[in-house]
Order: sequence, then structure tokens, then C-alpha cells
Amino acid sequence: MARISESTIRRLSHYYRVLEEVEVEGKRLISSHRLAEREGITSAQVRKDFSYFGSFGRRGLGYNVQHLREEIRAILGLDRRWRVALIGAGNIGAALLAYRGFARQGFDVAAVFDRDPLRVGQRLGELIVRDVSDLAAAARELRIDMGIIATPVRAAQEVADLLVAAGVQGILNFAPRKLFVPSQIALRNVDMTVELESLSFSLSKLVTSRRRRARG
Amino acid sequence: MARISESTIRRLSHYYRVLEEVEVEGKRLISSHRLAEREGITSAQVRKDFSYFGSFGRRGLGYNVQHLREEIRAILGLDRRWRVALIGAGNIGAALLAYRGFARQGFDVAAVFDRDPLRVGQRLGELIVRDVSDLAAAARELRIDMGIIATPVRAAQEVADLLVAAGVQGILNFAPRKLFVPSQIALRNVDMTVELESLSFSLSKLVTSRRRRARG
Repeated sequence: MARISESTIRRLSHYYRVLEEVEVEGKRLISSHRLAEREGITSAQVRKDFSYFGSFGRRGLGYNVQHLREEIRAILGLDRRWRVALIGAGNIGAALLAYRGFARQGFDVAAVFDRDPLRVGQRLGELIVRDVSDLAAAARELRIDMGIIATPVRAAQEVADLLVAAGVQGILNFAPRKLFVPSQIALRNVDMTVELESLSFSLSKLVTSRRRRARG
Repeated sequence: MARISESTIRRLSHYYRVLEEVEVEGKRLISSHRLAEREGITSAQVRKDFSYFGSFGRRGLGYNVQHLREEIRAILGLDRRWRVALIGAGNIGAALLAYRGFARQGFDVAAVFDRDPLRVGQRLGELIVRDVSDLAAAARELRIDMGIIATPVRAAQEVADLLVAAGVQGILNFAPRKLFVPSQIALRNVDMTVELESLSFSLSKLVTSRRRRARG
């Protein structure tokens, strides 16, 4: 398989959602045009994205929905299950543990860690919070594939280093800071704080310019 | 103020976190070098980011931590409060409503909507779930600034259209699809599904290449 870009992967995720919808509607075929429309891109881009893994629709007929969905599912690794360690049992950690989308996408949270003595030993969902000092041993014992960092900013890099040392292959980071990890580790960021502050910035600008117009 | 790029806004969010930390440590001054190091960028980029709003440190002394933090706070609109409507009372919606970070960043969820008759009328946190058909009237009555979309993919665009029609200025979208809104609306996406699937993709590739090496 040729090297697939980050933006192609993102679009595959989105195509996958469209294919799920279309399959539920009972449609057997889908055109590259319909997929393109939903993403606001050209049909040529859609066809190029699929050419990476050799899936070609037939001209004038389109793609077989079920076949394409299964191919994307396999490409994205959604046919496997991954064992996850969650670090940080605070607000974000608790919300994430309650979020059932993880399991549906193949991610099973097998252990949760914190360093606050008030939290360690407490029950969170179906798990007991462990001390972060047990992370390395527990990660090996539980064959953890991936860590989710939901700690305060100041602890995030240290926890990332611990996860790397414990042999995890991937990290999903919810702490609003840039993390540094070796290049072979898959690192993704979900930066809700930054998105919120970026919205807050835009809203403030709008309010300010409306006031200016009202005065002008 | 000159037009500030999206990536500058993101870095301002990150600088803000560093400044909070440094202030707690009791430090009065910070160098552009320290901020740069944390972001993995050059000091020149940091100075350029601050020059947009005219904050200049003194050569060899650095920036006044408290002053800089207050400036960034004002720029990002974190000194205001925004009234939010949450649409979608499912898994993600419930997790978001439980997440206390919103309020800390100035976002108050004033109403929650769903279209499932089984959910409408139910209590979620401190709110009663309303029917999405009341969105336009409620948004005006409650002076909603912003909508959070936490619906299934198939409803997301329709809800975005409703929010725009109801006069909101910003949208935070958690549904894994591209949304189309007028250019004056601030739209940000938090696409956890895509990040997870991108991680899943990378983990699968790693596993496959390790197996290949083991066989080779």
C-alpha cells in the first residue's frame, strides 16, 4: 500500500460514515460524486483517495457500498480491538470513560490511572483508579496498545514519556499542549480547549465589530 | 488588530496554559525561548505571534507573565461568558454536559435539545431535554450565542442549518462530517471519531509491519 496522507485518512473516516448511512437506506451503489459533495471536494479527489488501496468503481455505476465500507473498515483497523490505558481520572477522564463511542470503535479502556492519592483506589465506571507509578508494570501485564492522556497540562509530557517507556504504540492526547514523542509512536490530539478558545476568539471579534458598526 | 491566523490562535491557547503554570510557580518573567521550546517552534515565531496585538517583551528580560496572560485572555475572549445550546442528548451530549471544563472556559450550556421523543422531557444534568423543533424560539428567548452539535452524523447538517437560522454566531461540531455554514459563522470541529480512526489506522500498520518483520 502506498503511503496514505493524514488528510486521506480523515476523509476515509468521513466516507465510512456516509457509507454506513447509505447502507441503512438500503442503497447498493454510491457515486464518487455523492461522496465528494458531502466533503465539499471533487469527485477526482474521492477516486484518488480510493486508488491508494486499489478500490475502483465502475464508470457510470459507482462503488459497491458494502464492499467499499468493508475495505475502509479494514484499512482503518476498525475490525480489530485495542487495549487502552486512560491516564487522568479528573473531569475529562471521567467524561471519556462514560463515553460509549470508544468501545464501539474498537477501543477498550482496560485501566485508569491518576497520581492524586484521593483518586487512587476509587471506583470510576467499572474500573478502580490505579496509581500512575504502576503504569509501566500494568501496561505490560494488560498488554496495553495505546494511552489516552487526560491529565492537567503540567503532567502531560511526563505521562507521555511514561507511556512510551511502557511500550505503547499510540497516544491520544486531550491535554492542551504540544507533546514530544519518538517518531514511531502514533500521536493524535483532541484539543477541545483550543477549539473552544478559538470559537471564543471569533465570537468576541463578532461582538466587537457589531458594536463598532452600531456606534458608527 | 491585524488578521490573526488560525494557527496563531491555537498557539495563543497553548501559551496561555504555560503562562498559567509559570504564574502558579511564582515566576514574574518568561522568555520567548521558553514558550518556543514548549511548542517546538522558534523564538522568532513566538515574538511574531505576540506582535499581532502589540505585546513586546524587553530584550534580555522577557515578558511579564501576568500582563501577557491577561492580554491573551482578553484576545481569546476568555473574560466573557457565552450562552450555549447543546443539540444531541446521546452519549457525546451527556459526556459534554458532565464536562466541567466548558463553564471554566466561559461557556454556559443554557439548553439541551434532542429529537428522540424518549429523550425529550427527561432530565440531563441540571437541564430538561427540549424538542429540537423548539430550537429557534428557545435560542432567541435564551439569547444563545453558540451551538454544540452532538447529534448522529445524519442529523448534523440539518441542525447546523437550524442553528444558523436561529441566529447563533458560532458552532462547535462533534459529528464526524464536514458541515456547510455561511462564512460569517465561526465553525470549529472536534472530531474524536476521526482521531481515533486515524490512531487505529496507525496501530494496524504497526502491527502488520511487525508481523511482516517477524515472518521475514
